[in-house]
Order: sequence, then C-alpha cells, then structure tokens
Amino acid sequence: MAIEFKVLKECRRTGARLGQLKTPHGMINTPVFMPVGTQATVKAMTPEELKDMSAQIVLSNTYHLYMRPGHELVRNAGGLHRFMNWDRSILTDSGGFQVFSLGNLREIKEEGVHFQSHIDGSRHFISPEKAVEIQNALGADIIMAFDECPPYPCDYTYAKNSMEITARWAERCLKAHKNAYKQALFGIIQGSVYRDLRKESARQITSLGFPGYAMGGLSVGEPKDLMYNMLEETVPFIPSDKPRYLMGVGSPDSLIEGVIRGIDMFDCVLQTRIARNGTVMTSRGKVVVRNACYAEDFTPLDPECQCYTCANYSKAYIRHLLKANEILGLRLTTYHNLYFTLGLMGRIRKAIEGDYLPEFRDDFFEKYGY
Amino acid sequence: MAIEFKVLKECRRTGARLGQLKTPHGMINTPVFMPVGTQATVKAMTPEELKDMSAQIVLSNTYHLYMRPGHELVRNAGGLHRFMNWDRSILTDSGGFQVFSLGNLREIKEEGVHFQSHIDGSRHFISPEKAVEIQNALGADIIMAFDECPPYPCDYTYAKNSMEITARWAERCLKAHKNAYKQALFGIIQGSVYRDLRKESARQITSLGFPGYAMGGLSVGEPKDLMYNMLEETVPFIPSDKPRYLMGVGSPDSLIEGVIRGIDMFDCVLQTRIARNGTVMTSRGKVVVRNACYAEDFTPLDPECQCYTCANYSKAYIRHLLKANEILGLRLTTYHNLYFTLGLMGRIRKAIEGDYLPEFRDDFFEKYGY
Repeated sequence: MAIEFKVLKECRRTGARLGQLKTPHGMINTPVFMPVGTQATVKAMTPEELKDMSAQIVLSNTYHLYMRPGHELVRNAGGLHRFMNWDRSILTDSGGFQVFSLGNLREIKEEGVHFQSHIDGSRHFISPEKAVEIQNALGADIIMAFDECPPYPCDYTYAKNSMEITARWAERCLKAHKNAYKQALFGIIQGSVYRDLRKESARQITSLGFPGYAMGGLSVGEPKDLMYNMLEETVPFIPSDKPRYLMGVGSPDSLIEGVIRGIDMFDCVLQTRIARNGTVMTSRGKVVVRNACYAEDFTPLDPECQCYTCANYSKAYIRHLLKANEILGLRLTTYHNLYFTLGLMGRIRKAIEGDYLPEFRDDFFEKYGY
Repeated sequence: MAIEFKVLKECRRTGARLGQLKTPHGMINTPVFMPVGTQATVKAMTPEELKDMSAQIVLSNTYHLYMRPGHELVRNAGGLHRFMNWDRSILTDSGGFQVFSLGNLREIKEEGVHFQSHIDGSRHFISPEKAVEIQNALGADIIMAFDECPPYPCDYTYAKNSMEITARWAERCLKAHKNAYKQALFGIIQGSVYRDLRKESARQITSLGFPGYAMGGLSVGEPKDLMYNMLEETVPFIPSDKPRYLMGVGSPDSLIEGVIRGIDMFDCVLQTRIARNGTVMTSRGKVVVRNACYAEDFTPLDPECQCYTCANYSKAYIRHLLKANEILGLRLTTYHNLYFTLGLMGRIRKAIEGDYLPEFRDDFFEKYGY
C-alpha cells in the first residue's frame, strides 16, 4: 500500500483524533491542513517557504494541470514532485469539482463528462478512467476518485442520482488505478445535504475498500451547521482506521469544528485568496490591511504571530505594497495566512494531545471572534 | 562625512578601478550594481533574497515614494531602511528623471518643476530644496541632486540651458541638505551628448565639491558608442578619489564598458523588468523562456548558473508558471537575472584585481554573444 495511517490518540470528549499518515514522501501529522497549489505552485510561495511554515502536504488540481501544462509533460518532467521542486507529500483532486463548476460548458453522462476548456474553449472528455490516468501521470501520493459534486441547493432526486453515479464511477476508478503501490486512491462520499443519502453514499463507497475517504460536496453554499450535521451523520460510517478528508474546507472555525467531528485532512484556497485581496487572519480576527486606517500603523499584522512577515514588516508597509501592486505585498500576506493556519492546526493537534480541545475551541471562538 | 571612498587598485590597462565605499549601513565593494526598488521594494524580492545574491546597496525612487506612500509616512516609519526591512545601504535618486519623463504633465521653471501625479492627476511642485527635503525624510545613505535630464535627441541650446540650470540647482541642493553627516549628496553631470557641455558640466559640478558624482542623461536613447564616448570625455574631469556613478545603466555589456571607463556604480531596471516579461540573462546570452521551444526543456535557465532558480527549477516549469500567470514564475526569473548581474559584477571585480579585465571583456563578448 502507498500509505499507512495510524490513529495515535482518540479524544474522549469529541470525535477528534491524532494520527500519522505515512506516504512515499514522508510522515504527516494529522489533523492536517493542506495548502492549495492549483497550478503546481502554492500561489506566491516557494517550497522552502512552505517548509519553513511546516507544511506537510500540498494539494494540486488535476483539472488545471491537465489543461496546462498537460499531464504528459508533467510525467516527462519526472512527475509533479520533481516538476514543482516539492519533495514532501502531494494530493491531487480528481478534477471533478472543477469540471462541474464549468456550468453550461460541460455535459455529464454515464461514461464521463464532456466539457470545454476555460482557457481556449477546446473540447475535452474526462471519465473516471481518464481522471485516474491523468493522476497516475502526475504522480501525487494521494489521488482522488472522479465524483460528481452536486450544487447547493439541489433536489433530492438529483442528489440521489448524483450519489449513485459517484458510486459507479468510484468502482471504475479503482479498476483503472495502476499505481496502488505508490499512489493511494481515496473514495469520495457525496449525497448533498440529505442525511440518508450521505449514509447510503458512505455505505456504498466504503464497501469498495479505499485506503482513505473524503467528504465531497460540502462548503458549496449550505449553512455551516448543515455541513457540520452532515459530518456527524457520515463520519460514524467510515472505518475508523482510515483517514477522513473534508474537501475544500479550511476557515479557522471550520477546521476546529471539522476536527471535533473526526476529520483528519483539510484543504482550502481561502488563506491564499484573501491574502491576495489584502485580508489577513490574525489572533484577533480578520484584518483588511488595505484599509486606510492602517496607512500609518507601524505594528505587525498580528502582534502574537512569530512568522517572517510579522517579525519584519508593518501593516503600513504591507498596505503600501498592496496599494502599489507590488508582488512582495502578496508574498507577505500569503505567507502570514498560511503560517497562521498551519500554526492553528498545530495548536489543535496539541489540544487533542493534551485533552483540552473543547476548551481550546471555546477560547478560540471567544477570544478571536470568528 | 556620511561616506568614505577608497580606491584600492587602478587597472593599468583600462580606466577601471577597484574600490570600497563605506556608508552608515556598511561597506560596498566597487564597481557595484544596485538593484532598483522603485517603490521601496525590489520587485518580487525580499531583502533576504537580495542578501543571498550579495546585493550591497539598492536604489529607490524619490518621485514614487513621494507620491505613495509619502515621504512623511516613511520618516514616521523610522526611515526607508526600517520601512522596507533593508539594513544595508540605500541610494535614492532625486526624482528629476521621473518628473521630466512625465512629458506634458510637467513644466520646468527656474524655481523648480510643476507637475501632475501619474497616479491621481493631483498637482505638485518639486524644487531642488524640496527634492533634498524629501530625500532627507526618506533617509537613504546616498541621495542625489535634483537635475534636469534632457531628452535624446536634444539640440545644443536646450542641452546648454539644461546643463546651466542643473548647475544652479546643484548649488541649491547643497545648501538645502541638512544631513551631510549621515547622507551623502551626489552631484549629477549633464550636457546631453555634447563633449564640450559634458566637460563644462563636469567642471561646474565638481567645483561645488560633492562627495560623489553621477553621469546623468545617458542611456536615454543615444547609441551606446556615443554614451561610452561621453564617459571617456567626462570621467577624467572628476576627482579620482570620488565615486563615479552611471545612472540607469546596467545591461551586461554596458556594465563592463562602463567599468573600463572608470565607473564605480550602476543601477538599472532592465534585469527585473525583462524577468517579468519572461526573458533571462544567461552565460550564453538572453533566453526568452516563455517561448514554445522551452515547453519540454527540463534543463535550468543557465546550466552554468549556481543560483536558487537554476539549482531547483527547469525552463519547462518556469515557462508553465509564466504562462499561467503565477507569481512564483516572476520570482524565479527576477532572482536569476539579479543573481546573474551581481555575479557578473563580482567577476568584473576579480578581473580588475587579477589584471585581466580586457581579456575578461573579450571572452565575455565572444563567448556569451552580447
């Protein structure tokens, strides 16, 4: 098997657990947050900077890499790790979410999805087999089954059909997967916001025997409470010796709530995206550093933060850089937001270890105002 | 005095010399190339990266900082060094060149220049006194006199008047300068491409007794041979114990030719600008890495280069990043071009020290094809 997962400790007061996930590129302490490197680069960062902030694994997007530069090129480069100079673990998504997000540029059929490129309008077809083939070429440590991700809201019949096709595609992905000895293929549980469908999807997908399971189709517009409820309804049906991954979720509050409900892995573009818009996450909540009130604020983004940005630069300077469209501004805010989030995950792991996760949660929500 | 300059060695076969320039922020080995940080940041780089590549001093632009974020704000931040987290030397230009480049947005009078902001069209006035006041607030180690930089081509009468006003403004700058003990004010020699005017300007400006002298108004469109000729006609009239700075010049060939004609300091935006357009300087000439022929080229930008970029990334990956508008692409090409240029200056210094500068020049031009 490509990965080994071990639960080191289970929280007695919540569903949280501390674990270790071993991949061909190293050991990952879970729960883990995965920075997103959509186009084979975590926007504005070098691999060394990601290591400085203790990133253990990054996510890259199959759809984007398939479109540009092409999975064959990445394979010829020696695989994604070598191409992007990242020797720690990588997870690639299946491309499903991106393809379904194309709206009327795509058509879903039993055999797969026909769609047009967002770059040049060219026509393409991705099937479960193709998604696995692309991911085999990219060579990530963890790859994802090709699923259908229904929108929110979505009626029961659509959600049910979507869940059924996801199960059939999951089976086809397993059959098509050539590199099980060095790439772990995770199954994805769907079912929109319907409890019975989530349970049924969990039953269907787990019966296929994947080395890890993801919750898909959440954080797509539904209220957060509904998302948390879906986790509560689904997680108990996933074998506890397998890693559980909540896809596309990573706001600070959702990280804590997800961990409490038994999630081991998260990814999110929020940190890097809001950074580029001039918003940073701090120990006292979000700060929109572009705002005029920070023009002469010579204090760091977050006085409690130990990161490179906060150790060396003021809000006034960072605001100046952002207003002047200077790349360094984006670098500094991105670095800070990722450092903050990876640091938060570290604190969450410590809280599980020290048996004070519920107190940590309350303290975080109260003190930091998320 | 704010600076001390010592000529360590004079080349017997060319006008080149090896020197040391001491500023309040450290010792600079000359000849030196100064990366340009127009808006208080060398585009896409951190100060640590600049140190990694042995940058000794950076240039920042008074006009830009006066417009945004404002010199008072920078003074309130503790000065430019602290604002931008750069503890090595800084030189600020006077803003003259930028103001004259505004074309019909500016009007030159004896008292100074009236102009409109390139950002919001607001009206401003910069006099020699104001230019010095702004630079005093910014706090660079070396500041420049406010000069008039004539365009090329430019008729004799215009050039003569421009030279005369530059001399009168130089005197006013000296009088207005408040921080001579910690900021060295350099004079600027003008005179367009007229030999007698260059000589006369050198006589006028050096008679005022500045701690350093710049050649202004060159590399503004005239043939390179004409620029080199102007250096040959002017440099002999500058006291040999003072640093000589050729403003805005920094292509690899011009660096070598300038040093041979006795220049000690250079600055140029070329390296960082072409990097962002996907062009890199290599030991074998320029490489336009955006070009399709590099799509599957998995070799470094320059096989002879030891820089971070060349040690870790392929042309194919860098091309992918540039095509996908990823910030890391600009970072990697910028880093490489600055490393290449600072490395070239290091090799030039070694060639002066080892008495083989003419051979180095011939070898460079022949082998590398500039």
